[in-house]
Amino acid sequence: MKKEEDSTLLERTILLHIAYDGTNYHGWQIQPNGITIEEVLNRAVSDLCQEEIQVIGASRTDSGVHAIDNIAVFSTNFKMDATKICYALNQRLPDDIRIMKSYETTRGFHPRRCRSKKEYKYQIYCDRIEDPLVSRYTCFEYCPVNVEKMKEAAKYLVGEHDFKSFCAVRTQARTTVREIYKLDITKEGNIITIIIEGNGFLFNMVRIIVGTLLKVGRGAYEPPHVQTILEAGNRSLAGPTACAKGLTLNKYTFLEE
Amino acid sequence: MKKEEDSTLLERTILLHIAYDGTNYHGWQIQPNGITIEEVLNRAVSDLCQEEIQVIGASRTDSGVHAIDNIAVFSTNFKMDATKICYALNQRLPDDIRIMKSYETTRGFHPRRCRSKKEYKYQIYCDRIEDPLVSRYTCFEYCPVNVEKMKEAAKYLVGEHDFKSFCAVRTQARTTVREIYKLDITKEGNIITIIIEGNGFLFNMVRIIVGTLLKVGRGAYEPPHVQTILEAGNRSLAGPTACAKGLTLNKYTFLEE
Repeated sequence: MKKEEDSTLLERTILLHIAYDGTNYHGWQIQPNGITIEEVLNRAVSDLCQEEIQVIGASRTDSGVHAIDNIAVFSTNFKMDATKICYALNQRLPDDIRIMKSYETTRGFHPRRCRSKKEYKYQIYCDRIEDPLVSRYTCFEYCPVNVEKMKEAAKYLVGEHDFKSFCAVRTQARTTVREIYKLDITKEGNIITIIIEGNGFLFNMVRIIVGTLLKVGRGAYEPPHVQTILEAGNRSLAGPTACAKGLTLNKYTFLEE
Repeated sequence: MKKEEDSTLLERTILLHIAYDGTNYHGWQIQPNGITIEEVLNRAVSDLCQEEIQVIGASRTDSGVHAIDNIAVFSTNFKMDATKICYALNQRLPDDIRIMKSYETTRGFHPRRCRSKKEYKYQIYCDRIEDPLVSRYTCFEYCPVNVEKMKEAAKYLVGEHDFKSFCAVRTQARTTVREIYKLDITKEGNIITIIIEGNGFLFNMVRIIVGTLLKVGRGAYEPPHVQTILEAGNRSLAGPTACAKGLTLNKYTFLEE
């Protein structure tokens, strides 16, 4: 794990594992027009430590996206036992954001400057009428969906590829090459669950992949067409961006250098 | 199934199967100080049928309680195909209330005037920190809980008993005798699920039963003590009323006369 170049004068760096229901937030990153997870977290951490603190998030999830295990770090001179900081922060946070664990990490550790893998879960509820008890965490699909065809199409996406076709046009990424380690699709009852793991994801990539797989599932095109989309490097050929509320960041793992 | 004595001049009676997330509602029944499911439903039905309509609910769930399958009926002269009414109503309802099915039933049918059984689900999330992605539909339990002891205690409650000890003091019920057909407790991961089925439940009865079983689970008393509580007919001996958000009305079934 790398340290920040401009090593800080602050004594210790605390790592937080964060879960949140993203419904009421305009994503992770601070922005002028709506409340964000980062903003609420900064306020809680600053209040607890009695210092002006900015957390650094590992994954800057989009508006409406949920997380079971996102990561943030902050540096501080505050003295509290690091493993107890989660409890003290939870008292200062709204019910839809919870720090599940806290501990001390390498001083100055920056979560976006080290190799990592991320696992996302995307859930689709398939029926004629949306179920209000699952709609908060699932995307609604009215049309009949062929899950076997979606599984077949998913195989073309696993591995290292240029995912330019599966990336929002306004990306700032230097390269659009990414590696997908795993793309599993299962159906239980009315719910299709897609688990996708990779070394990194471009802007909207998971949701565009889901939107494209759903088009295959509905029969709009055959599974091998996903290969054609991949090779074209053209966003307009892929499916639409699936809705945010179906997406949850499941796990963020740092890899040893 | 009985018909109402004062048989109505309206032509047909429509039955609705309703699912809702109760978080944002002050329960089913119309009241002066907060929005209720009944009120929102009356408005949607009246708007669709262009008549002043009052629905009759089968189960008048409490504030914050959810439903997978509650029932309501209404009588109308409105001519739409009954099986399509659910779609037309859903367009007029907020996302957290959904009509899952609609059809025509016996004219003047009153859902609370016929024999029925009800199944409730109660979910408890057991961990040191509450998970924001399940907290909407679970009650949070911080203490370690012995599920086997809860199962043992549950056996004393199954069958026909006077449940006076398990009923909110302000009940208006003529008799406090009820029959519980089933009381199953399972644990999967961090979540304890209690399924309870009976011919009827007194005011707060399910939640007081859960509050009492949780006291057994935490070791506050041994399972046979539930028998003593039952025999005493004294609300103050039973456990506290468990929180509303963990409770979901799973199923409402009409029995043939």
